Amino acid sequence: MKTSVSVALLLCVTTFVCQAEDFRQRLISVEENIRHESWSLEGSDFPFKTASPVSITKKTLHGGKQEGVEVIEVDNGALRFTVIPTRGMGIYEVVKGDLRLGWNSPVKEIVHPSYVNLNSRGGLGWLEGFNEWMVRCGLEWVGHPGEDKFINNVGDEATMDLTLHGKIANIPASEVEIVIDEEPPHMIRVRGRVDERMFYGPQLELWTEIATAPGSSVFTLTDQIVNEGADDQEFQILYHTNFGPPLLEEGAELVAPIKEIRPFNDHAAQAIDKAASYDSPTPGYIEQVYCMELFADENNRSEVLLKNSKHDRGVSMAWSVEELPYLTQWKNLPALDAGYVTGIEPGTSFPHNRQVEREKGRVPKLKPGEMRQFQIEFGVLMSEVEVSETEESIRKIQGDRETKVNSEPEE
Amino acid sequence: MKTSVSVALLLCVTTFVCQAEDFRQRLISVEENIRHESWSLEGSDFPFKTASPVSITKKTLHGGKQEGVEVIEVDNGALRFTVIPTRGMGIYEVVKGDLRLGWNSPVKEIVHPSYVNLNSRGGLGWLEGFNEWMVRCGLEWVGHPGEDKFINNVGDEATMDLTLHGKIANIPASEVEIVIDEEPPHMIRVRGRVDERMFYGPQLELWTEIATAPGSSVFTLTDQIVNEGADDQEFQILYHTNFGPPLLEEGAELVAPIKEIRPFNDHAAQAIDKAASYDSPTPGYIEQVYCMELFADENNRSEVLLKNSKHDRGVSMAWSVEELPYLTQWKNLPALDAGYVTGIEPGTSFPHNRQVEREKGRVPKLKPGEMRQFQIEFGVLMSEVEVSETEESIRKIQGDRETKVNSEPEE
Amino acid sequence: MKTSVSVALLLCVTTFVCQAEDFRQRLISVEENIRHESWSLEGSDFPFKTASPVSITKKTLHGGKQEGVEVIEVDNGALRFTVIPTRGMGIYEVVKGDLRLGWNSPVKEIVHPSYVNLNSRGGLGWLEGFNEWMVRCGLEWVGHPGEDKFINNVGDEATMDLTLHGKIANIPASEVEIVIDEEPPHMIRVRGRVDERMFYGPQLELWTEIATAPGSSVFTLTDQIVNEGADDQEFQILYHTNFGPPLLEEGAELVAPIKEIRPFNDHAAQAIDKAASYDSPTPGYIEQVYCMELFADENNRSEVLLKNSKHDRGVSMAWSVEELPYLTQWKNLPALDAGYVTGIEPGTSFPHNRQVEREKGRVPKLKPGEMRQFQIEFGVLMSEVEVSETEESIRKIQGDRETKVNSEPEE
Repeated sequence: MKTSVSVALLLCVTTFVCQAEDFRQRLISVEENIRHESWSLEGSDFPFKTASPVSITKKTLHGGKQEGVEVIEVDNGALRFTVIPTRGMGIYEVVKGDLRLGWNSPVKEIVHPSYVNLNSRGGLGWLEGFNEWMVRCGLEWVGHPGEDKFINNVGDEATMDLTLHGKIANIPASEVEIVIDEEPPHMIRVRGRVDERMFYGPQLELWTEIATAPGSSVFTLTDQIVNEGADDQEFQILYHTNFGPPLLEEGAELVAPIKEIRPFNDHAAQAIDKAASYDSPTPGYIEQVYCMELFADENNRSEVLLKNSKHDRGVSMAWSVEELPYLTQWKNLPALDAGYVTGIEPGTSFPHNRQVEREKGRVPKLKPGEMRQFQIEFGVLMSEVEVSETEESIRKIQGDRETKVNSEPEE
Repeated sequence: MKTSVSVALLLCVTTFVCQAEDFRQRLISVEENIRHESWSLEGSDFPFKTASPVSITKKTLHGGKQEGVEVIEVDNGALRFTVIPTRGMGIYEVVKGDLRLGWNSPVKEIVHPSYVNLNSRGGLGWLEGFNEWMVRCGLEWVGHPGEDKFINNVGDEATMDLTLHGKIANIPASEVEIVIDEEPPHMIRVRGRVDERMFYGPQLELWTEIATAPGSSVFTLTDQIVNEGADDQEFQILYHTNFGPPLLEEGAELVAPIKEIRPFNDHAAQAIDKAASYDSPTPGYIEQVYCMELFADENNRSEVLLKNSKHDRGVSMAWSVEELPYLTQWKNLPALDAGYVTGIEPGTSFPHNRQVEREKGRVPKLKPGEMRQFQIEFGVLMSEVEVSETEESIRKIQGDRETKVNSEPEE
Repeated sequence: MKTSVSVALLLCVTTFVCQAEDFRQRLISVEENIRHESWSLEGSDFPFKTASPVSITKKTLHGGKQEGVEVIEVDNGALRFTVIPTRGMGIYEVVKGDLRLGWNSPVKEIVHPSYVNLNSRGGLGWLEGFNEWMVRCGLEWVGHPGEDKFINNVGDEATMDLTLHGKIANIPASEVEIVIDEEPPHMIRVRGRVDERMFYGPQLELWTEIATAPGSSVFTLTDQIVNEGADDQEFQILYHTNFGPPLLEEGAELVAPIKEIRPFNDHAAQAIDKAASYDSPTPGYIEQVYCMELFADENNRSEVLLKNSKHDRGVSMAWSVEELPYLTQWKNLPALDAGYVTGIEPGTSFPHNRQVEREKGRVPKLKPGEMRQFQIEFGVLMSEVEVSETEESIRKIQGDRETKVNSEPEE
């Protein structure tokens, strides 16, 4: 009923600093037993003076499988994004002018987790709710379904069937608040906590903040994963960030400072030479997946760019390769209605079944009380100049270092 | 969040014609983010003058496993029926005078889909919510649980465990509206759309209309199934229409123009001679199922009748054997409290596991954008005259054509 | 939609007597389509004059996985307990002064059943919601997951995977009411009915009453399980009653008149000599479980005591060994944050998989319409005197009868 620690305090720990004069509004709270059907802050109600008109709206969706789903829409005057507390604080879409970050999934509604049975369809039930621009895979596992071993309550080794991409996207946030900095530029922050806890299982907490400044084309996702358990705990996180048209089209391209690339399977191996470029929708297309490690600058920061064919629209994603050392590129280019989409997916591992990733040494552990932070900065690029500047900065990271191309999947 | 096309328009396509002056009330809508706790239209609020007093009521159920379930009750002055948008637009019951179409299932509440785990009990979880007069099986599959093959996201053949009778009965409607024709006889129409969609899976939409005229003893169910996907898509539909007392009793009888009949299994084979007639409740009775094809008239229309022992109450069901070529009769005649019921179930196939039905060529496909329509007309018969007239019209369809009786189940 | 019988009447059958002048308030009802977001009765609104101030509050929880969960808090002036209708009428905690009966589970929220997939994690999904002081295991089965046989709808023997501890804890109550006796001492009664019903499955109803007198340190749980089906029906019930600090600590002790004790497995066998006493939290501790039968007094009533190390706080539990012949003691003593807890669990059997319990003759059956009653009286002991008096009464039950210690698990 109550969390064991004061959430008000915890929401301000570490990077999530709060000042006394900041504007704060709790929108969902287990601690305070709060859940508003709707709420908004706009116009003259906005607590600080900003150059751009800002609005923040929380509403509840109705009808079909989206009955009861809560969404928060932030418009910073330059771009607008929609956060889904009910689906693990995923982000449904980001819109700036004529550019929408997101995709047209065959799943049309924002599906309430109570309609998703992760175990169905041989562990592929996650796909019944998959339509977000950015959805987290994790936290106990991120990859493909299949058997893995664990130690059960009587101390014996037991097997369990992992389900596709883990549970976190189908867990509703326990605490959600809006913070607006008192200090200019009056950053707008949507914060939330999502718990992946069970008895005789993980006690992982995800703390997330999506932050943007009024009028900015940039926003930053900052996640902290904490092991609240008494024992060392494996965890995984993978940011399944998905792009359809208009950015994705024939001639669109992924620009990245690739240190090493490898096909996910034999099918992808056949087309590895053309991994970076995208074709038009191709009915019957089978997904191609590539596993990469990136070069980074002297601060371990790397960056990638997805740009359209005319090179006048793009999105940049920058992160630390210490935090997220592995990048998965998912190319799914069938007919438009079948989900024409590419995933740019930085993670703590690749999305093989956890058993495989563990063998390869790519499943980290958190000690009791330990916290690990992940940050991704997104830029929405609306001109040739912005696109070419970003491309230049990525080329600079690569420098004259060569990309190692593995033509075969990992054994 | 929004469907990709305008629902307002689609709800009027093809047979679902709307006129500008018709009364229309949206009750549930993803498109418009609508969900009313309750709503009603009756007495002087009714928009047109009718001979019989008409009322339409929408309410939300509370308590137990029916918390949040939405139902719509239509009383046309002569009969009353209850539609369940939350359970795939199934029909809970139909009542006319002393005759209730429906049955007394051990399941007493109208169960919210969030309490139904289709995968439980070896794929029999569907039975935790089964108590409707008419519940659709489908749309991806309709039959018995068990393994079937499919092509997964990496293009490989994979297996999945089908669950009993498919998903559609446990999917809430995305759009529901009431339409009342401006033109006499001022037909009352309950329309809804139920989506069975997933990524890397089917994109099937069910459009349904239940229509009746004020004062009439007849109502018509019209369904359209559309493949919204980019690829050819298998589908199945079976109308699991269930009758208990008072219609079902010792001496009740199913009258049908049977072209061919076959027992579902060895157990049913033993009693195939008495398939048409019903016994009184028999503790320990094991279900008997018969698979039939019917003769039809020159318009491919066939008709069946279930009548009580005194032949003064009955229900008629008429449909096109082009649309629904297979009829399954389910006889479940244990003690009253255990669910004394018979199912009269027209479908696109029989309810074997889909793998079996596919082998027999009874699993149709829809091309991208293709629509298939299904219509059943139900008549509630309240006198010996009505019953005998219906019987006569069925005998006329049979004519002197012989019924082929297969004593063995299909191999 | 409606139960087949009048609930108002049934709530007064057998031991659940109602008088015309009693105060009665229905809080949740399928029958009456009732569900209050909140309700309370306190101060001058209380219908009768009591020595102690009494309050009864019903509220709905919000946020995270507890969205929509309904709880009822009763404060009798001396102790306070919280009942969870949404989770099968379990009891979250009992508090008297500085003594809280309950534990600190890694699961922090009171989890709504729609977020629990019992089949997940190889049948251990129940653990995702496990944090109550008292949670019932049952009614179709109570024990460990694994395969068991049953007769399916076509009369064949089929197998199903039982899930840990059964379904009842994740079924919301269909009827809940508060009754306050008109007659002194004006007993306060929280009554509810939870249905475990499915087609081709059990039709078991649980009727429960938690009763306490204003100002009392004692409360009584009375359950009735009724087979509403037409056939004989197996059932199981086990009261998983769980204690953490402050009662559980190094030096805490379970006092019981043990007739026979046996370790659950080889691991528990090693420490059977110290079964009665508790250690401090021990990181990495693997659960130890002991299976017992108790001696009883001439009325078949037995009693156990859990006391703290200073012997000045304790809880007593008394019941009839005719009703609940088997007692399971669960010792789970890892680090505090991992769930330092002991379960004192009277039941109709031990918690082995039902197949094992059936072979041992410990799975009872109910005939159609048959009812079985279970009653446990709990006393909250706040002084050395109360603790030693209870201990004395337990020693008296044991007398000079010897405990049979089996050093090996049951075969």
